[in-house]
Amino acid sequence: MAGKLAAFHAFRSTMNEKLLRKGNLQLKRFFNLDSQVYSDGALSSRTKELLGLVASAVLRCDDCITYHLIRCAEAGVTDEEFFETFNVILIVGGSITIPHLRRAVETLEEIRTQEEHTSNQNQRSGEKTGKQGKKAGRKARVQAWEKRRKEK
Amino acid sequence: MAGKLAAFHAFRSTMNEKLLRKGNLQLKRFFNLDSQVYSDGALSSRTKELLGLVASAVLRCDDCITYHLIRCAEAGVTDEEFFETFNVILIVGGSITIPHLRRAVETLEEIRTQEEHTSNQNQRSGEKTGKQGKKAGRKARVQAWEKRRKEK
Amino acid sequence: MAGKLAAFHAFRSTMNEKLLRKGNLQLKRFFNLDSQVYSDGALSSRTKELLGLVASAVLRCDDCITYHLIRCAEAGVTDEEFFETFNVILIVGGSITIPHLRRAVETLEEIRTQEEHTSNQNQRSGEKTGKQGKKAGRKARVQAWEKRRKEK
Amino acid sequence: MAGKLAAFHAFRSTMNEKLLRKGNLQLKRFFNLDSQVYSDGALSSRTKELLGLVASAVLRCDDCITYHLIRCAEAGVTDEEFFETFNVILIVGGSITIPHLRRAVETLEEIRTQEEHTSNQNQRSGEKTGKQGKKAGRKARVQAWEKRRKEK
Amino acid sequence: MAGKLAAFHAFRSTMNEKLLRKGNLQLKRFFNLDSQVYSDGALSSRTKELLGLVASAVLRCDDCITYHLIRCAEAGVTDEEFFETFNVILIVGGSITIPHLRRAVETLEEIRTQEEHTSNQNQRSGEKTGKQGKKAGRKARVQAWEKRRKEK
Amino acid sequence: MAGKLAAFHAFRSTMNEKLLRKGNLQLKRFFNLDSQVYSDGALSSRTKELLGLVASAVLRCDDCITYHLIRCAEAGVTDEEFFETFNVILIVGGSITIPHLRRAVETLEEIRTQEEHTSNQNQRSGEKTGKQGKKAGRKARVQAWEKRRKEK
Repeated sequence: MAGKLAAFHAFRSTMNEKLLRKGNLQLKRFFNLDSQVYSDGALSSRTKELLGLVASAVLRCDDCITYHLIRCAEAGVTDEEFFETFNVILIVGGSITIPHLRRAVETLEEIRTQEEHTSNQNQRSGEKTGKQGKKAGRKARVQAWEKRRKEK
Repeated sequence: MAGKLAAFHAFRSTMNEKLLRKGNLQLKRFFNLDSQVYSDGALSSRTKELLGLVASAVLRCDDCITYHLIRCAEAGVTDEEFFETFNVILIVGGSITIPHLRRAVETLEEIRTQEEHTSNQNQRSGEKTGKQGKKAGRKARVQAWEKRRKEK
Repeated sequence: MAGKLAAFHAFRSTMNEKLLRKGNLQLKRFFNLDSQVYSDGALSSRTKELLGLVASAVLRCDDCITYHLIRCAEAGVTDEEFFETFNVILIVGGSITIPHLRRAVETLEEIRTQEEHTSNQNQRSGEKTGKQGKKAGRKARVQAWEKRRKEK
Repeated sequence: MAGKLAAFHAFRSTMNEKLLRKGNLQLKRFFNLDSQVYSDGALSSRTKELLGLVASAVLRCDDCITYHLIRCAEAGVTDEEFFETFNVILIVGGSITIPHLRRAVETLEEIRTQEEHTSNQNQRSGEKTGKQGKKAGRKARVQAWEKRRKEK
Repeated sequence: MAGKLAAFHAFRSTMNEKLLRKGNLQLKRFFNLDSQVYSDGALSSRTKELLGLVASAVLRCDDCITYHLIRCAEAGVTDEEFFETFNVILIVGGSITIPHLRRAVETLEEIRTQEEHTSNQNQRSGEKTGKQGKKAGRKARVQAWEKRRKEK
Repeated sequence: MAGKLAAFHAFRSTMNEKLLRKGNLQLKRFFNLDSQVYSDGALSSRTKELLGLVASAVLRCDDCITYHLIRCAEAGVTDEEFFETFNVILIVGGSITIPHLRRAVETLEEIRTQEEHTSNQNQRSGEKTGKQGKKAGRKARVQAWEKRRKEK
């Protein structure tokens, strides 16, 4: 996994673990609730992750943006959809969000590189190539995501 | 139209008109851009209005919330979908958003009453009744919304 | 109860009820959690209400400020303590909090008037007077608060 | 003085007085400091009031906006200058500031009506008319402002 | 002193010094006021530091959080008290505060390690051990704090 | 160019380029508008950059502060003027802005060092010295700025 993303994941999981180990019952409940609200319901989990991304961006929290970018990408959000989401962020939140969008674009690049990498690894064991392979990679990712959601 | 909604629309359109009449070119451009970003694209206008609602709520602006509630309802967002959106708002934005959600629920009630009223008026000239009529009312509303978007 | 406080309580309880009746499980859980975090623990409920007041004020939410002012007063917070809390709010949050503090002072006056009124009613059925009666009123209020907390 | 402005001034001065009477030394010092920072220095008081207006608007505090609109108008800020300031507010703070700008335009109208009124009263005792009188009114206002600043 | 804490102190004191050396009278007065509001009064300095911590966290300023964590720890705030404070922060401010709480837990660890280190050094010159020594370390720290406050 | 400033410029221009290359029409329009609102009009570009600085600082965005500090310095804003602007930021935005002001002072130092460096280079090819040279440097910078604005 690319550098910044890996560092983000490592710090996040280490510290969340510490927070939850030392934290009281209320803190655990908040964390549980935090993951529940993004699961499928009347609105799809995919749409809710986009809502989470917008909330994170207008409140200008880089780590929260990174988290929801990853989750959205796993749910198959395309670059075109991301940039239309950035438009809403920019118009509602103003130019003060621009530095966060610059960093979001950088993070998104890392995410795509990572996806490519995983997709290529899968291809080596199979035989799809080029654009078709890319599409297959996305499809596989979305299927994995659907599966994880159903298992919860 | 119910009292608060009518007052909201009246003040909003009067003052927007004044803002734009007295405002310079840059202000006009911002207003144009503000309506462009919510139109259909890779993401549907409906999803973008939900994004706008979440952004408005976590930044805690009652007038913006009212505006996007109206737009979302016009796009056929259901109560169940609204309440799942409120969950995301609440978890990301915290209890500080609760007073805004209380007012949002009140506004939503007015919107639904208004919809009922319009739907009943349409029924008097036709003959559909009960739940079927309600559904027809929503369908008509969504069609009107689709039509308006295409005409833009 | 004085006008604004009564109106606050009425709207708050009506709309909270609606929110919870229409709301989903996650919303109910958030509301439960919201009341749990202010109960006695390593820190007293009184201190936590002061923390809630400061959080509400620097995030500039009048309804939240009103709520925590009421709760703090029930827990026996004195005017002197309130004004030292206002100092922290003012220095951390800046002059942008001043209009909220003006309204907080107005709310606090209503709360004290209401306390006086209740205290006077109690005196009529007993025989304490003057400053002694006031003190007895506060003592009774704090005892009622302690009792409520233990019953939870 | 027009309705809303008069109500603003009345509530503001009543409550500030209460805040300062009941408040401790630190609160008084903050209020003193709050008026000192807008006085003439390397930057003119006029520029500083514009800075205060922008800060108030992007932090979205209506009362603070009203206060700085009044002060700016007293310092002779023109409508054209106000609208260019609104542009900066809008671009940095985003569409979330629009409801505040709508109310700002309404307040500005009241301020101008009030200025007109004062100017007309002055004309009745003198003999200037029309555009010339208007200009004289502004000039007088700016002179009064300069005088007040020097007397501090 | 541990790495991040030391770096925080170094940058903070160097830049505060520059700010004050180059700054004007108003800036100096603000800084004075900023330290005055946390001193003992009707509320203890300890409680006020907790108020400062909550304000810093819901406004999401890492450096301010670090500063108040240090001050609270010096005033003898326990981990259990810190985590109940984190609950209030989390519920009022929402999940957007989580990345700040992760960093706060990391900072708190450094603070505790540093305390342990100091406590061990003191023990070497005396003869207390184990849990008793820890308690003595805390007691000494709180006494030092009380002393500093009285000398002001 | 000094380290941090150079890094800021490099990242900013690389990512802005990517944002605009991948971004849609609305994003481009927002960026265009963002540069238009700071150009000369009824208010000078210099004053508008100060407005942008204050907006950035009370909304607490370090990158935005850095950007406007650079622009203000190019427009000839003096240290005395900067520190009076910091006063307004501090009083309106509160102590929560202090860490940003510490970083702003550090950035300002880098900017001045860079200016000195450029000024010295110019002197070597000419013959002005000492304070006179400094003034000439500033004058040249302001003239360059005026020229760029007119060419737009």
